[in-house]
Amino acid sequence: MKIITPKEIDAFKRTVDGGTEDQRSTVQTIIEDVKEKQDKAVLSYTKQLDGADLESLAVTKEEFAHARSQLDPSDVAVLEEACANIRSFHQKQVRNSWFDTDQDGTMLGQKITPLDAVGVYVPGGTAAYPSSVFMNVMPAIVAGVERIVMVSPPSEEGTLPAGVLVAAEIAGVKEIYKAGGAQAVAALAYGTESIQPVDKIVGPGNVYVALAKREVFGDVDIDMIAGPSEIVVLADETAFASDIAADLLSQAEHDARSSSVLVTSSQELAEEVTREVHQQLEHLPRKQIAQASVNDYGGIVICDNLSQAVDVVNELAPEHLEVQTKEPFMLLGKIKHAGAIFLGRYSSEPIGDYFAGPNHVLPTSGTARFSSPLNVDDFVKKSSVIYYSKASYDKHADKIARFARLEGLEAHARAVEMRKESGEK
Amino acid sequence: MKIITPKEIDAFKRTVDGGTEDQRSTVQTIIEDVKEKQDKAVLSYTKQLDGADLESLAVTKEEFAHARSQLDPSDVAVLEEACANIRSFHQKQVRNSWFDTDQDGTMLGQKITPLDAVGVYVPGGTAAYPSSVFMNVMPAIVAGVERIVMVSPPSEEGTLPAGVLVAAEIAGVKEIYKAGGAQAVAALAYGTESIQPVDKIVGPGNVYVALAKREVFGDVDIDMIAGPSEIVVLADETAFASDIAADLLSQAEHDARSSSVLVTSSQELAEEVTREVHQQLEHLPRKQIAQASVNDYGGIVICDNLSQAVDVVNELAPEHLEVQTKEPFMLLGKIKHAGAIFLGRYSSEPIGDYFAGPNHVLPTSGTARFSSPLNVDDFVKKSSVIYYSKASYDKHADKIARFARLEGLEAHARAVEMRKESGEK
Repeated sequence: MKIITPKEIDAFKRTVDGGTEDQRSTVQTIIEDVKEKQDKAVLSYTKQLDGADLESLAVTKEEFAHARSQLDPSDVAVLEEACANIRSFHQKQVRNSWFDTDQDGTMLGQKITPLDAVGVYVPGGTAAYPSSVFMNVMPAIVAGVERIVMVSPPSEEGTLPAGVLVAAEIAGVKEIYKAGGAQAVAALAYGTESIQPVDKIVGPGNVYVALAKREVFGDVDIDMIAGPSEIVVLADETAFASDIAADLLSQAEHDARSSSVLVTSSQELAEEVTREVHQQLEHLPRKQIAQASVNDYGGIVICDNLSQAVDVVNELAPEHLEVQTKEPFMLLGKIKHAGAIFLGRYSSEPIGDYFAGPNHVLPTSGTARFSSPLNVDDFVKKSSVIYYSKASYDKHADKIARFARLEGLEAHARAVEMRKESGEK
Repeated sequence: MKIITPKEIDAFKRTVDGGTEDQRSTVQTIIEDVKEKQDKAVLSYTKQLDGADLESLAVTKEEFAHARSQLDPSDVAVLEEACANIRSFHQKQVRNSWFDTDQDGTMLGQKITPLDAVGVYVPGGTAAYPSSVFMNVMPAIVAGVERIVMVSPPSEEGTLPAGVLVAAEIAGVKEIYKAGGAQAVAALAYGTESIQPVDKIVGPGNVYVALAKREVFGDVDIDMIAGPSEIVVLADETAFASDIAADLLSQAEHDARSSSVLVTSSQELAEEVTREVHQQLEHLPRKQIAQASVNDYGGIVICDNLSQAVDVVNELAPEHLEVQTKEPFMLLGKIKHAGAIFLGRYSSEPIGDYFAGPNHVLPTSGTARFSSPLNVDDFVKKSSVIYYSKASYDKHADKIARFARLEGLEAHARAVEMRKESGEK
């Protein structure tokens, strides 16, 4: 693990992968094909890219039942408890429409309405995670979205993983299609014979999925483009090196490009964590991935004190932040940029990945500067509501017309004034 | 004005302008130039594209003072009152951080933090509107954003309009640069010697500005890409044709591509409004623009009844919606998609453009299906907060490890379990 000083932290900053010109143009071609040939194009790309020769895209009731029979009931129980926790946390994010009145009768407000239809992309292969199904679907369900559509690339045998199907069933998703990549994103955005279009597309995916989402953005809404996973642990000398090393490695096993960084005021802890990381690495099934991640994107920043360490954390704006210090709550007010903040020794990051309730879809690559965890607000939209009574109109009409004329928009001024001329019926 | 039936409403649907391949590549070149040559590139494009030969980009104190001296004090008073109304409405959108605890000591919550720095683009020329300054700046100020940077393309003389500068001063903006187009967007996103980078860029602009925002999205956040302005008036036989015609025209005078549509259950009203539109058009200073807009994008949809009319409105998902019916509040629950909803006869749309308080930056081109008016939420981000006590950990650790193993992520399971092994200090 690289050990650096705060001045060198640019080494640990990430940027969003914009894809190559070739990848962009491939994605554009696929999207155009799907717009034109619809299901036929989706089926053809699914054969070409996923190796699955399907007759139809929709997952059937029989496939749901078969998936359920493949899972250990104890696993299903854990999935159900996690889903209930995620539902419960997101229910606290729900907001009411509101209005405000004044004595003249003016009423101003904000109406909250759920989106009609949302598409959730679930990656295939080893990255087909039941937890990802919950985290993307539950905020939409809690928001009140009526139609939730899942898409996921099938195996060569034309199947989806049992865990994903069971998680979808527990969450309450009924409409799932076996399609992945840019073709699935295009089908969700523009519709095909068998897939009605949606208003927003969320969920992680490879670079083609990310580029396709970027391409359809505007015609539909999308969530943020996710980069490789990251963790920063902020720790002082009271922290346990073995815990920190294990948490860093849990991030490193995701992807060779994942990043795990310790920011600490303790030189001794830094040395202990380095030793622990190398020891624990030896026994991991995904050792190769974790090793590459630690070597290329892992590191330790040694700071003069905790205050400087918090500045470093804010510079990095990590996806996940653990605060393992003597008084973690004391630092909460100083932390400006982080997707999720785990406080104290027992708040190991995987607790948030799976179970606690807050969303694990978090801003990566420094975008915690301006982005939020996926949440219920992402699945509703607001409409302003404006009611002016005759009394408020009489009081303010001339000023409004004056403002319009200041901007050179005479028809705006006349629209306001027209109510005086046209009288009463 | 075209008169159509609900079946033909696709004629009134809009899509977002994606720009041409040439425009995209021009924008990419400008962005790369600004990244590399910074201020020098911005100054050079400002000379080339705006015709202004500047020595430095920042607006000076003297320029602010000069602008103030050019405005009629009555206009300044109206600007101040409007700004106060906008502040007051947006203050009602402010949300608290929150947390929830359980008896085991678990604490879960959501921390709200304002963005550090926001850039506001204000278009130049005749589209340099003081109201646009207020609407883009005030939600950021109310959100608590510390640094707000305005950019706007200068005239050939190297000046910005007095109204824009005075509005900026009233709103509380101190940092303004004379730069426009893709070069200004690039400077805001990546920084130059004189402009520190920001975290989010908002504000309307031409196709180059829109494409540049789309290009930098991910490195910084952006607001929605705005299309031409739109109004739909939903009216029954109780409405005043002269009012409706004036409101339709106030939208039409913005831009030849603006769209003004009446959706009504009354054939008689449709005919009256058509007559009124043509009469009122004759006397408008911006007659040419309004006429083109009405001819190409104006129209009337005649429905069998109000219920069908509401369905048409939801299909169109208009930026502005006026409800001029006998009982406008009765329809509020049925309206799913609209940026701003103006209820009743006296709630003429320009009241919302300038004065009432709700934002006039609204989703266009049907994006009200999934987007909201610009609001305080757009200038804050959330961080999840997770604290597990030892008691909660002991209760749930095994289940969390089980979930991790179900997903094949052994290091995740071990991280959770490690707290048992590493004991106490």
